[in-house]
Amino acid sequence: MKIDVLTLFPRMFEGPLTESIIGKAIERQLLDVTVMNFRDFSENKHRNVDDYPYGGGAGMLLTAQPIFGALDTIQAENPETKKRVILLDPAGVPFTQSVAEELAEEEHLVFICGHYEGYDERIRSLVTDEVSLGDYVLTGGELGAMVMIDATVRLLPEVLGNEESAKTDSHSTGLLEHPQYTRPADYRGMKVPDVLLSGNHKKIAEWQEKESLRRTYFRRPDMLEQLELTKEQKNWLAEIKSEEC
Amino acid sequence: MKIDVLTLFPRMFEGPLTESIIGKAIERQLLDVTVMNFRDFSENKHRNVDDYPYGGGAGMLLTAQPIFGALDTIQAENPETKKRVILLDPAGVPFTQSVAEELAEEEHLVFICGHYEGYDERIRSLVTDEVSLGDYVLTGGELGAMVMIDATVRLLPEVLGNEESAKTDSHSTGLLEHPQYTRPADYRGMKVPDVLLSGNHKKIAEWQEKESLRRTYFRRPDMLEQLELTKEQKNWLAEIKSEEC
Repeated sequence: MKIDVLTLFPRMFEGPLTESIIGKAIERQLLDVTVMNFRDFSENKHRNVDDYPYGGGAGMLLTAQPIFGALDTIQAENPETKKRVILLDPAGVPFTQSVAEELAEEEHLVFICGHYEGYDERIRSLVTDEVSLGDYVLTGGELGAMVMIDATVRLLPEVLGNEESAKTDSHSTGLLEHPQYTRPADYRGMKVPDVLLSGNHKKIAEWQEKESLRRTYFRRPDMLEQLELTKEQKNWLAEIKSEEC
Repeated sequence: MKIDVLTLFPRMFEGPLTESIIGKAIERQLLDVTVMNFRDFSENKHRNVDDYPYGGGAGMLLTAQPIFGALDTIQAENPETKKRVILLDPAGVPFTQSVAEELAEEEHLVFICGHYEGYDERIRSLVTDEVSLGDYVLTGGELGAMVMIDATVRLLPEVLGNEESAKTDSHSTGLLEHPQYTRPADYRGMKVPDVLLSGNHKKIAEWQEKESLRRTYFRRPDMLEQLELTKEQKNWLAEIKSEEC
């Protein structure tokens, strides 16, 4: 997969792109990431990238020209790739696991990271997707791009060591993950539930699925509503609800 | 504000914490951030921080001891601060602007960044908040902590240059931001709407508010449902809906 990132703060990506699983994927050439400063494409003699908004208002807007220039260059250098051009913007569609799954199928992603008060509206004509990380405001799009790259890249074949891990996490199954424990069996008086030490795999699997349902029911009932539960899950849920009283 | 971050990948924070507005806030001593590797607190002779889950299952879990050790040290070094201890976890409460506003009122935040398959359940006994960045899976909690720090710190007094900017963004007013334009008035044939060039401040303000409503109505009707609209906004919304037909 090829990824281009347009940003005014390329150094922000240094740590995140060299460490952890993303760094390893780049090292193993499963991934090719180029971070470019779109200020380098400004045709303004002061290399400006922002200007006052028409009609007044607080802050500065990113001007169209440098970002158009950067994308022209990416297109000229990669005429044949099918590109998804993603604008990081609080007014975009919220990013979810299914967006990550969709992006993981693409060959070439371009992320445009905003800053200051926002984008000149005409920049939106360049993009295929406007995506928001969540309902909160950040100082720029850089962290959003890093998050989307991370969520996407971990879904690529061979990136995660253990393929099973990608599937059983919270949000991959539609349920939150059940409580998990590792050694010691007693830490500062807090004990691991007996069933997990029993060696009875059927009982353990049942406990895990039920606790997963329980956690989702109490913390994220909205997620449960989106699921078609099996008959067994419905019975457990009824039990969980009755235990509550 | 004091912030401690517990992570196995402290280098990931290097770029994000030195660049942009967060970097400036640290430089201006509005913010004191310490990133510590909790592996340094492992009492295991191999400095291990993870182990197999009881009951089987894929991947490794973070063990309780190193994180308990790191928090004991933070408590010993800062006995008097009131701490919010935030566990980054996909099973947590979704992070929103109102969580950021709440965190911006605190004096001392501690972020615990997970990795691998998850946490030993007993680590949750240490925390005041379990927060998820959104409904997607990341390779670790580091990017989540950076996002939460960014969203929180930009709300601190004096951090943003222009105080008004923090208030009018998407999600701060409950509506998405209206389209914005800067020079030139015509870029590659795409023109700025006449009203914005008119100099009529009342008309401009009306256009902006209406376009803000329009964008929210089409993109995020769920956000509109949460708002109590003024009579004027209700009229505009009716107009917008009738224009649609």
